[in-house]
Amino acid sequence: MNTRPDQAPAQGVEPIAPLREFVVAMTRLVERTDHEPALLAEGRELLAKLIARDDWLPEFCAQPDPQFYRQYLLHADPLERFSVVSFVWGPGQRTPVHDHTVWGLVGMLRGAELCQRWKREADGRLVPDGEQATLRPGEVDAVSPTVGDIHVVANGLPDRPSISIHVYGANIGALRRHVFDPETGASKDFVSGYSSDRVPNLWDRSAAVRGGAGAK
Amino acid sequence: MNTRPDQAPAQGVEPIAPLREFVVAMTRLVERTDHEPALLAEGRELLAKLIARDDWLPEFCAQPDPQFYRQYLLHADPLERFSVVSFVWGPGQRTPVHDHTVWGLVGMLRGAELCQRWKREADGRLVPDGEQATLRPGEVDAVSPTVGDIHVVANGLPDRPSISIHVYGANIGALRRHVFDPETGASKDFVSGYSSDRVPNLWDRSAAVRGGAGAK
Ligand SMILES: [Fe+3]
Ligand SMILES: [Fe+3]
Ligand SMILES: [Mg+2]
Repeated sequence: MNTRPDQAPAQGVEPIAPLREFVVAMTRLVERTDHEPALLAEGRELLAKLIARDDWLPEFCAQPDPQFYRQYLLHADPLERFSVVSFVWGPGQRTPVHDHTVWGLVGMLRGAELCQRWKREADGRLVPDGEQATLRPGEVDAVSPTVGDIHVVANGLPDRPSISIHVYGANIGALRRHVFDPETGASKDFVSGYSSDRVPNLWDRSAAVRGGAGAK
Repeated sequence: MNTRPDQAPAQGVEPIAPLREFVVAMTRLVERTDHEPALLAEGRELLAKLIARDDWLPEFCAQPDPQFYRQYLLHADPLERFSVVSFVWGPGQRTPVHDHTVWGLVGMLRGAELCQRWKREADGRLVPDGEQATLRPGEVDAVSPTVGDIHVVANGLPDRPSISIHVYGANIGALRRHVFDPETGASKDFVSGYSSDRVPNLWDRSAAVRGGAGAK
């Protein structure tokens, strides 16, 4: 837990509730539409609400690794229309230049992240696209083949872990996508997988139901 | 793992794949219908296929407790149209007389289970309904307010754990239902909850995708 001072959890509600509410709302959204601009716009609002507080991420999904950044699956839609992960950055850790091939939303939960977009020129070269940006807690960034899909992300803190929450329009860990050599523009396939064989149990509402919170 | 001798996992497929395939098929089923007879009939076939082999249940969802039977959530539909749990019985463990209030399917994975149905008489008394039955690996039983909802279940083995896989037409751990005093017929509310705050990650298909199994 890492509760911001003004954000005490509501009485009798289990800590994971905000993540469950996000997953339910995202599920209703993908049931309603597969239109990317709507998914990005409504998904951004839902994600902003989720990361407005930092008291719900289970500890086992917040553990950095000494060597590599980690991505813990928090939820996958069973029809693989979206997935939610926590990215945990140790000091000095960064991604290669990579793409996603699907829409994605990156919401900063804890610490800070440096993002540099890249784009492919007509002659095939990869060049930086704009300035490096810093993402701060509560802020959301978007990627997709339509809005710009290639970037590098790095921990923005030199001495502490940072954590961002990502939502993608697919089962991101099982997607064949690409890393790039920024010198040559050459691409190589990669499939990221996930850092844990377990995900949080979002569904144990028993304490609230026993306490009289109703059937749902 | 507890592989039956004729059932080696398919090459390159991760052990959890049968559970993922079951969850995807159940999701497609509840997307298509909410008609109980169809859910029980088609769900029974899917569950029978899942429990025809015993090489996929993660160890952490197969751990008995010295005192009480355990129910590990394996998957909850995000819209709570169904849930899947592993019931793990230690030697001598049994449920109280209880109901479910929704449809349920009980598939025997490992060991044996004793089931005794009960019914309510016109005068309010609870009486046993038929003989005690033994469920063996590969067999499936059904409950619901329509087909008979009150029973007692117990480990059928005196000296070893038994494990059954249950599917219910709701988030079973968060449902307000009932236990009964068989002497008086008096009922008491109960909400079962779940035995773990984590569920298996069904969605890491990365090794298969890297190995060329295609995008899905
Ligand atoms: Fe990225
Ligand atoms: Fe039961
Ligand atoms: Mg639908």
